[in-house]
Amino acid sequence: MPTHEGPRTVADHLAEVLALVAALPPVSVPLDDALGLVLAQDVTAPEALPRFANSAMDGYAVRAHDVAGASVEHPVTLPVVLDLPAGADAQTAIAPGTAARIMTGAPVPPGADAIVPVEATDAGVQTVVITAPATLGAHVRRAGEDVAAGAVVLAAGEELTPYRIAAIASVGRAEVLAHRRPRVLLMSTGSELVVPGEAMRHGQIPDSNSYLLAAAARAAGASVVRLGAVPDDADALRAALGADRPEVDLVITSGGVSQGAYDVVKEVLIGLPQMRFVPVAMQPGKPQGLGRLEDGTPVLALPGNPVSAFVSFEAFGRPALLALRGLTGAALHRPRVRARVTEGWSSPRGREQHIPVVLTEGEHGLEARPAANRGSGSHLVASLALADGLAIVPRDVTAVGVGDEVAVVRIAP
Amino acid sequence: MPTHEGPRTVADHLAEVLALVAALPPVSVPLDDALGLVLAQDVTAPEALPRFANSAMDGYAVRAHDVAGASVEHPVTLPVVLDLPAGADAQTAIAPGTAARIMTGAPVPPGADAIVPVEATDAGVQTVVITAPATLGAHVRRAGEDVAAGAVVLAAGEELTPYRIAAIASVGRAEVLAHRRPRVLLMSTGSELVVPGEAMRHGQIPDSNSYLLAAAARAAGASVVRLGAVPDDADALRAALGADRPEVDLVITSGGVSQGAYDVVKEVLIGLPQMRFVPVAMQPGKPQGLGRLEDGTPVLALPGNPVSAFVSFEAFGRPALLALRGLTGAALHRPRVRARVTEGWSSPRGREQHIPVVLTEGEHGLEARPAANRGSGSHLVASLALADGLAIVPRDVTAVGVGDEVAVVRIAP
Repeated sequence: MPTHEGPRTVADHLAEVLALVAALPPVSVPLDDALGLVLAQDVTAPEALPRFANSAMDGYAVRAHDVAGASVEHPVTLPVVLDLPAGADAQTAIAPGTAARIMTGAPVPPGADAIVPVEATDAGVQTVVITAPATLGAHVRRAGEDVAAGAVVLAAGEELTPYRIAAIASVGRAEVLAHRRPRVLLMSTGSELVVPGEAMRHGQIPDSNSYLLAAAARAAGASVVRLGAVPDDADALRAALGADRPEVDLVITSGGVSQGAYDVVKEVLIGLPQMRFVPVAMQPGKPQGLGRLEDGTPVLALPGNPVSAFVSFEAFGRPALLALRGLTGAALHRPRVRARVTEGWSSPRGREQHIPVVLTEGEHGLEARPAANRGSGSHLVASLALADGLAIVPRDVTAVGVGDEVAVVRIAP
Repeated sequence: MPTHEGPRTVADHLAEVLALVAALPPVSVPLDDALGLVLAQDVTAPEALPRFANSAMDGYAVRAHDVAGASVEHPVTLPVVLDLPAGADAQTAIAPGTAARIMTGAPVPPGADAIVPVEATDAGVQTVVITAPATLGAHVRRAGEDVAAGAVVLAAGEELTPYRIAAIASVGRAEVLAHRRPRVLLMSTGSELVVPGEAMRHGQIPDSNSYLLAAAARAAGASVVRLGAVPDDADALRAALGADRPEVDLVITSGGVSQGAYDVVKEVLIGLPQMRFVPVAMQPGKPQGLGRLEDGTPVLALPGNPVSAFVSFEAFGRPALLALRGLTGAALHRPRVRARVTEGWSSPRGREQHIPVVLTEGEHGLEARPAANRGSGSHLVASLALADGLAIVPRDVTAVGVGDEVAVVRIAP
């Protein structure tokens, strides 16, 4: 059994959590299934982009020299010798003194060095009357001006957003090498827990944590096996964590980690050589377990109060899942916004407080107030349903006053 | 054919887009499948929460009066007459002068009116030595203190985040009534487009828009039918939009909407009585089509340059999908952040510019610079792969300078 130790900081605990996980192996994924995955290999451009000089406008490809003097008063009329829709295989040169009708994206024919937009012409088909000059290269996208052949378009480690998927398609790639999506096993523990909707006797409540953590893990990009609630019974928990459990990359439990006589998660796991149960200097979420099962699968054992479980998942579980997905550094964390406090609260000295808040757009920017009726009460899940952020109060702050600025992590869309 | 009209504002065009769509019908959905759906009906608490008075700590349930004088110097010793784990069906009263061992969440037995935390005791099993007083009601969560019976826990119209799903579970609901997820048909148009990875001849390029829009629509919560690229051929497009197409709630096309001779989307759709093609005072994204197919299905016809298509999707397509999902008002729009410009650019007078930017966390807050090498060039999809926001430049601004503040919509996680 680990010896007694004082609370560690949130950052120190997170570092130990992240040491348990590593980016999952890369797999080849069709672009249609790649949204949200993380690139495992740089994507390079096999050819320069654009592949060929093409028109940035609907108009006429000309020699700039031929229309240098064109104006409304002195239009220039040219024969139209080619018609070039987008996709045309235009490799025939146009002769001096002629024009080609050309659509946006169509290849500029050899011999032409400028595009006259259709708006500066009579839109003719046999001949075209041009009423404005064009400078050399006007409205021509030069071959290779966007990306050089072999250039890295997207680096390994980037999360695949719609834009990035489009960039990969645009260099002619239909598949990418991306880190496999993590699979996570989620369970809540507690003999008081009943499947929602089933009959309850006195002393029982519906299981909400397994739904909370399952949805939060899905939102973090994991695929989820939600086991539901396991009773406070060592054999039942051993069975749930044993050889018959589904193969997963991470196990997350909630409940049973503090000092109580029936804290079964701690009771069952504390004997494993790679498991530790430690106090973390945060509120809520002080008791935390972490380590590995006997087969090496990483485990996070979160506290059981719903708000504690959620705050712990955000602080430790979500970064762990994101690291399994292949993200690193700042990408493991949600961006923080600043908000002005409109209703104060207290915070325990020596513990970093993560408190659910409601965010509203005030006259001078974002405003935050506690989501619960009564400060940081960690059990008030229903009254917290409308929280859309977690305010992070530093360890040395004991009171947050009206008008103070706090850092807030958004948890709602 | 509609008569000529001047450009309308982005807001006016969006209003017309939103008039085409309405929240989809509600369906009953198990909580495990509810993440990201939008509630179609208020969720009320069938019973008060907590259901019963319960302990907020591991410790001992006592009468406060019995331990009023307890201290380390003058401890009070009480017989332990009950052991109450979480889930215990404790309806037996404890007598004055006795205690019940109690775990967090377990029901407080009749007769007890305070909890002494285990830390203020010797943790005894037969008898307990108590070394601190307890005030009346200490560490007791009173029945009903969180939510009253019948109270609305979550209102119709809210998007189901993990927290909100947990709140629904906590009131004992296993299913919710939520708006059906929209199904959208996506296609790009252009004879120059080839499936990524397939051989290309001169003049051809890989289709990226259908991937871009498919991923963006998935990220917006839609289920997607990606048709790929349709050539600039009226019959091919009519077939793609005809009776054999999959049943969907919205069709989005890209390309073929401007003044060119081969703008096939406009050519095919402009004859339909409910379709319009209009200029919008934005850059990029000026030419836009909107309306309904003959069977009433709403259509958005976006321009074909990849950046124009994406900006148009963000401005019009995403809000339309979110409205189909049942969201309204501010929830149709991504939150905007303020960022300080570190590299200036120009913006066309009279058009609201939506320009892809790279965001970085500077010393004094967020900083933004254009993502493309050359200002707002709408074709540079590969060089935009790392954009993580769209800066929105008002219509009357023609130059954005270093140090200016701009509003930015985040498009990357």
